[in-house]
Amino acid sequence: MEKKGVLIVVSGPSGVGKGSVLKELVSLKGVFISISATTRSPREFEKDGVDYYFISREEFEEHIAKNDMVEYNEYCGNYYGTIKSKLIKLLKENEVVILEIDVNGASRIAESFDCVRVFLFPPSFEELKKRLVERGTENEESIKKRLNQAFIEVKRAYEYDYLVVNENIKKAAEDILNVAKVESLKIKNQECRIEEFIENRF
Amino acid sequence: MEKKGVLIVVSGPSGVGKGSVLKELVSLKGVFISISATTRSPREFEKDGVDYYFISREEFEEHIAKNDMVEYNEYCGNYYGTIKSKLIKLLKENEVVILEIDVNGASRIAESFDCVRVFLFPPSFEELKKRLVERGTENEESIKKRLNQAFIEVKRAYEYDYLVVNENIKKAAEDILNVAKVESLKIKNQECRIEEFIENRF
Repeated sequence: MEKKGVLIVVSGPSGVGKGSVLKELVSLKGVFISISATTRSPREFEKDGVDYYFISREEFEEHIAKNDMVEYNEYCGNYYGTIKSKLIKLLKENEVVILEIDVNGASRIAESFDCVRVFLFPPSFEELKKRLVERGTENEESIKKRLNQAFIEVKRAYEYDYLVVNENIKKAAEDILNVAKVESLKIKNQECRIEEFIENRF
Repeated sequence: MEKKGVLIVVSGPSGVGKGSVLKELVSLKGVFISISATTRSPREFEKDGVDYYFISREEFEEHIAKNDMVEYNEYCGNYYGTIKSKLIKLLKENEVVILEIDVNGASRIAESFDCVRVFLFPPSFEELKKRLVERGTENEESIKKRLNQAFIEVKRAYEYDYLVVNENIKKAAEDILNVAKVESLKIKNQECRIEEFIENRF
């Protein structure tokens, strides 16, 4: 049987610390973070193939036409999405592939792709608010908006397979890695081993 | 919400190394092994409350009558089984409780108890045979019988949630512990946290 990595789809509200946890995860052996494609122009410090795959609108629409986008959407006049052929290649080359996406994107991926969904959760409401305030990048109105959005997203955590609390970045990354490790132990992913054993009898 | 440990039910064919893996597991923090009750007499080095709970036939039948046996059976004129009230107490006191049992017992437990079933698997057919031969406690006929029984049991591995290969004792114990850790991250075991967050809004 061809070896295949586990796809972990991670979502979580703004301020929960997705970036830090993903940074910790990518430092671990066998873990790779999936990169989105976009038609928007790169910002000053962004690199192609690191932050995004920066592609033209024509190229993006070609992927759509070839059914080669796992999910995509249009935001402020630009496309954002995950290229299916790139994701399949990543899963062949890595034990664990992490894909960070919002709740709507996660549910679209789960419709067509074998994956495990993890919802990254704040330790508490107060802590989430504190983290948003401490970022210092947003005014009160914008923080209020983000907290409201957080409630909408948290209500959809029930759609996910696992909930990981980001109390501590290292621990949260470890939990997500454990979810991936255990996924490969599931009977449905080990059927070949059972069949092999039974066939070996004769 | 009351904290409740995860019940891991472990089965596996004779010779797979259940004893060694369980011994490794019990040395880990927060892990406890469930002890069976029996009506047979203790052997020379067996201790009550360590190897088994040695109880009288009357006492055992009382547990049955009170619906206080999770599962039980009669073998060579003696009862063997798991006392429900003791198991519930263990789950309150420990993060992880391991219960080793055969395939029939495992399916009976799963009918009435929230648990995760792990099938301990040999690295290969040849390795299982080798382990049985190396034990030196059995003749050729008995080894053949045990291997036949192993095939019957392996075919029922599909009923389990996870398959852990005992290639290395430490690794197998670690895998089982990970299964338990990840179980507590499942959404169904974290619903309180989501509810708490949503209620905190106001």
